[in-house]
Parts: sequence; C-alpha cells; structure tokens
Amino acid sequence: MPEAPAPRRILSGVQPSGKLHLGNYFGAIQQHIARQDTGEAFYFIADYHALTTLREAEAREADAAQKAGKKTWKSARELLAENVRDVALDYLALGLDPAKACFYRQSDVPEVCELAWMLATVTGMGLLERAHSYKDKVAQGIAPAVGLFTYPVLMAADILIVRSNVVPVGRDQVQHLEMTRDMAGYFNQAYGEVFPLPQEQLGETPTVPGTDGRKMSKSYGNTIEIFAEGKALKTAVMGIVTDSTPLESPKNPDTCNVATLYKLFASAEEVANLAAHYRDPLLNAHEREGKPFGYGHAKQLLLKKIDGYFADARQRRKELLADPTRVEAVLKAGAAKARAEAVKTMELVRQRVGMLPRPVA
Amino acid sequence: MPEAPAPRRILSGVQPSGKLHLGNYFGAIQQHIARQDTGEAFYFIADYHALTTLREAEAREADAAQKAGKKTWKSARELLAENVRDVALDYLALGLDPAKACFYRQSDVPEVCELAWMLATVTGMGLLERAHSYKDKVAQGIAPAVGLFTYPVLMAADILIVRSNVVPVGRDQVQHLEMTRDMAGYFNQAYGEVFPLPQEQLGETPTVPGTDGRKMSKSYGNTIEIFAEGKALKTAVMGIVTDSTPLESPKNPDTCNVATLYKLFASAEEVANLAAHYRDPLLNAHEREGKPFGYGHAKQLLLKKIDGYFADARQRRKELLADPTRVEAVLKAGAAKARAEAVKTMELVRQRVGMLPRPVA
Repeated sequence: MPEAPAPRRILSGVQPSGKLHLGNYFGAIQQHIARQDTGEAFYFIADYHALTTLREAEAREADAAQKAGKKTWKSARELLAENVRDVALDYLALGLDPAKACFYRQSDVPEVCELAWMLATVTGMGLLERAHSYKDKVAQGIAPAVGLFTYPVLMAADILIVRSNVVPVGRDQVQHLEMTRDMAGYFNQAYGEVFPLPQEQLGETPTVPGTDGRKMSKSYGNTIEIFAEGKALKTAVMGIVTDSTPLESPKNPDTCNVATLYKLFASAEEVANLAAHYRDPLLNAHEREGKPFGYGHAKQLLLKKIDGYFADARQRRKELLADPTRVEAVLKAGAAKARAEAVKTMELVRQRVGMLPRPVA
Repeated sequence: MPEAPAPRRILSGVQPSGKLHLGNYFGAIQQHIARQDTGEAFYFIADYHALTTLREAEAREADAAQKAGKKTWKSARELLAENVRDVALDYLALGLDPAKACFYRQSDVPEVCELAWMLATVTGMGLLERAHSYKDKVAQGIAPAVGLFTYPVLMAADILIVRSNVVPVGRDQVQHLEMTRDMAGYFNQAYGEVFPLPQEQLGETPTVPGTDGRKMSKSYGNTIEIFAEGKALKTAVMGIVTDSTPLESPKNPDTCNVATLYKLFASAEEVANLAAHYRDPLLNAHEREGKPFGYGHAKQLLLKKIDGYFADARQRRKELLADPTRVEAVLKAGAAKARAEAVKTMELVRQRVGMLPRPVA
C-alpha cells in the first residue's frame, strides 16, 4: 500500500497594517480561512516585517493628527501593538479557528531572525538587487532601509523555518517565492539537504473596487472597512462613486462599482435580480411607490448585504475585544507550536553549519 | 560624594579562522588578555560571522587536499566546529581568565540576530554601501553575499546587545564602529534612548613581519603559529627571509625581520645585545668557536625565545585539549552571562518597538 501523502503545510503572513477592508477580505482573508480545512496551516502576524514601514505609518498618523488640530497622536510603538491586536481580533472574528490553524505573532518566533542570517550568508547580492518590490520602492524615490532590501531573506526564513510546502500568495509575491526556493537551494547545496522547496499557490481572487472605482486600497483612501457598522458603514457605501445616468434610464450592471461589490455578497439569483433592475428601472416599481430603481436603491441593497454578511463576525469581534486574555492565549498557544517547529529546524540548521544544535539556554 | 564611575564594558569579537599566529598574538590577543583587568570584558568567538567566509575556507581546504593527493578533506561544518574549539583553547591557554572576562560563542546568543533585524529596519542602505570593507571585496571581484554586505549590522548588534562602552579595534575597523554609533543613534531617535554610543579604543600594536618580510598574515602563507613547537617551529623560524650580507660583515638590526621579531620577545638589554652582534659580527666570537655572528645565530636566539615564551601556554593548551568538558563549561558559563545581558537589552528593545517584552518561551 502506498504511504499516505504527508499533510500539506501551508504558511501565510499577515501584515498588521491597520483596519482591514473588503479588499483584504476577498483578496486574502477569506482564502486563509477556507484553507485551514485543506492542510496544516501556519498563519503569522508579520510584526518584524511591519518595522520596515512603522515609522512612515507613525509619520502619517502625526500628519493626520496635526491636520485635525490634535496635539497628540499614537507613537510607533502604540501603532504596532494596536495593529497586531487588531489583526488578531479580525482573523479570529472572521473564522480563523485556532484548533485548525496555528496562529502566531512572528516576533514570538525569534529563530526566524537567526535563520535569516544563515540564509544571508549563502545568498548573493544580485538575487536581492533583482527584487521587483525593492526596485519599485527605489524607483518611487523612497530612501530604502536595509530591512526593506533584506525583507525577502526574512520572508524566506518565515517560510522555511516551519518547512512549509505551500504558500498562498498573490501574483506580486511570486518572485519572493522564487527567491525563497533559490535561498533554500543555496543552503541545501552548501550544507546538505535541509529545506523542502516551497511552492506558491496562486488563488483566484475577485476584483474588489474601492468607493472611487480604483482597486480598494488603504493608500487610495477608498476602502470600506470589514468591521465598519452603523453610520460609518452607511457613509462609506453611500459614498461609492457611480456614473451620472439619469434615474429613469437603464444602467449597466457590468460597469457599476455598486453592482460589482454586490456580487461579492449576493447569491446568483440576487445578482440577476439587481441586473434586471439596472436594465429596467421601472421593474417592480410598485415596491418603490412607482419610482424608478436608481443607484441609491442599489446602495441600500449592498449596505444591507455587507451589514448582514459580517454581523456575526462583528459580534464575535466585540466579545473577543472584551476578552484580551483569550486572544493572548490563542496567540501564545500558536507561538508555542510554531516555535517548537522553528527550534526543530534550527537544530538541524545549526548542526549542519557546525554549531551546537542549540544555543545555551 | 560623586557616584563611582560605572565599570567600562569592553567588547571584542574573535574570528575563528584557523591556527593563530604571532601576528594575531601581538596584534590583538595580548591586548585582549591585558584588558581583562581594566574593565568588564566580553569576548566572543564570532561563529555567525565566520559563515560569511566558511565556504571559501572549505574550498581552500578541498583544493589543498586535492593538491596533496588526498581524497577527503574537512567539510565546512567540521572546519567551523574545529576552528571555534581551537580559538577557545588558544585564548584560554594564552591567559584569558574566565573569572575576569566573559568568553562565549556568538551563536550561543542568538538574540544578536534579532537585534540585527531591528537595526536593519532603521538603517539606510547608503550607510552600508559606503562601507570600505564591502567596497574592497567588490573591487576585488568577489561575488558578495548578502551576509557580507550586512556584516556591519550584525557587528553593531554584537556590540550593542551587551551595551558596551568600549570596543578595542584596529584602524581598519574604525569605520565599523562609526557605523555602529550611527545605527544606535537611528534606533534611539526612532524609539527613544536605549543604546549607549560605544567608543573605539585604538591600541598601539607592534609591527609583526611574516617570514617573508610582509605583514604576517594567513593569506600570505608567511606565519609562525603561536602553538607550533619542535621541528615545525624550527622550520618556520629558520625559513625567515634575511638579506645576503656576508656572514662576517656588519648587519642592520633595524631592517632585519629576525631582529624585528626578536624585539617582541626579548628584554631591552637582550635587544641591545643582539644589535651589538649585528653591528660587530666578531663580538664575543670566542663563544662561537671564533666564528662571526650570522643570521643563523640570530634565528637560534629567536627560536629559543619563542619556544620559551609560549612554553607554559603550550602546556596549558594540551591540558585543555584533553579536557573538552572544562572548555565547554567555560563557554557555557560565558554564554549564560552574555545571554542574560542580551535578553535584558532585547526586553527593552522589544518593548520600545511595541512588541511583547519577551517572545513566548
């Protein structure tokens, strides 16, 4: 009888960069949550990585506060602690099940920094110099920090330290996975086989337009937050930009941001029904006191959908927020599991390069 | 009453790069040993750093073995383990007193890798790009590894993690100390005062010519090893290059390699006596059956001096070599002390950037 295939070990990092929005949800979080049932998942909150952009985040915070006439604002330290807590709350509220997925803070597994050094000693500068993400930053005129340049090495360490087989990534991250395989290969070649070569898993993610029609992104200020509710949520949804087709004229559901967002939440039947109203604004006009169906009506439908879709998660998030000990316990248990794997990997790595298997305790 | 000044904390790293020679001894080791009485000394064996050149060392080893017709040679792993052990034996034999100086392996304090990451996130690429040592390597046509490029960051972490005040260095290392102060300053500025700014201490070190008259250096193959003895020591000393002044003619003690080396070991009186014999080769000729004083005689004197100077250390080294448990115990005790300091530093650093004071154990 053939051996049962080893469970696939899936790893993904989550940037703690503030309030999550619908783009984050449909672009990554939803897949993360779904994948916890398909293999042995390791999800970490990338707080070491966040340090590379933390001071810019602090500067933005200071800038916004000063423009609002405030005299104080959150320090870098407060921002990082808050963002890490928020992303933990968000993921747990949205369905990450710590019984299925190992969920931890990157900085609770400091062995990744040690492995990053080891990988740096076998990796040529050329590999990092060819990294798109770094070249893009430099082209944008950003004065690059060493940590931004060596970011792919720490990312490789994150992946290799738990010996992951599968890394779900977006297209923009494929090169980082290639680099990770290169680094794993360099090490294996220099010191003998230690690391499996991880494969990227490109998910099909839907397009999520922001309120202005561009890709939803924090940097465009066009987001609808996952955990927005009440007036804030209504303001965001009502602010979605639509075209100036007159109320009574037929509208195109395929080019309308409201309809595109609606598709993410609604059933096929509901989507078809909205499209029918777009094409024939007088459809079922009796339900609207005879008035034609306009974008305002569509936004109302979308608002109701979003509100309902995240209602349970919102409730769970509130409960978790009130119970920080529980959240901390989840992260600690995750860290203990991930760190045990990391220590196992580093024992082998250290032995292979001629060091004692473990540092002095 | 004014407070007593805090003890100066001295830090220095020792490269585990093979057999130590007289150049190492008079250029660094002697000062290290002397300084253990002048402050709180931390000396570490730089095995993380050694990984940046370990594979080149392995290649040289393979090359030499193949030239000698051998079919096997030491692997990178064996080389590192052996070199680390050797440098520990050498230092302890030469007088490093673990009761005075904290002596440890760098890799027993993995927190330095974590601190190196933190420093990398606040350090601009320009600082590293300006490093002489890196530019020299690139100019030499060496394909540089990332670890070679980021070497100064790990070195800064080594220094800052025990919050050293004083770092004894050679002139070629002054820029690295400047860079360390820069990185400490960047961090302090970003997250609040954590690190003292360490100062370099330039020692006056004597010139140590190799057997061919150039600076004694492993890469020139012109060394006299500290722990050479018997025939090997004799061959090395007798092989020192001298000029072709005829035996009976006066010789110049100021330009002779033998005399220069002799000065390192002999008393002022002995040095004056040798110089007198150089200038007048027939001085005390009756002691040499009437023969003039030649370079061969000078080499005999030097040989006797070196042999005597290191006799006790050689004996101690043999005892230590036979007692690996004792050496390991010294390194472990040193690591425990250094690591306690490192953990203390990292608690503050982690807190300052907004992480938990300690990773999950």
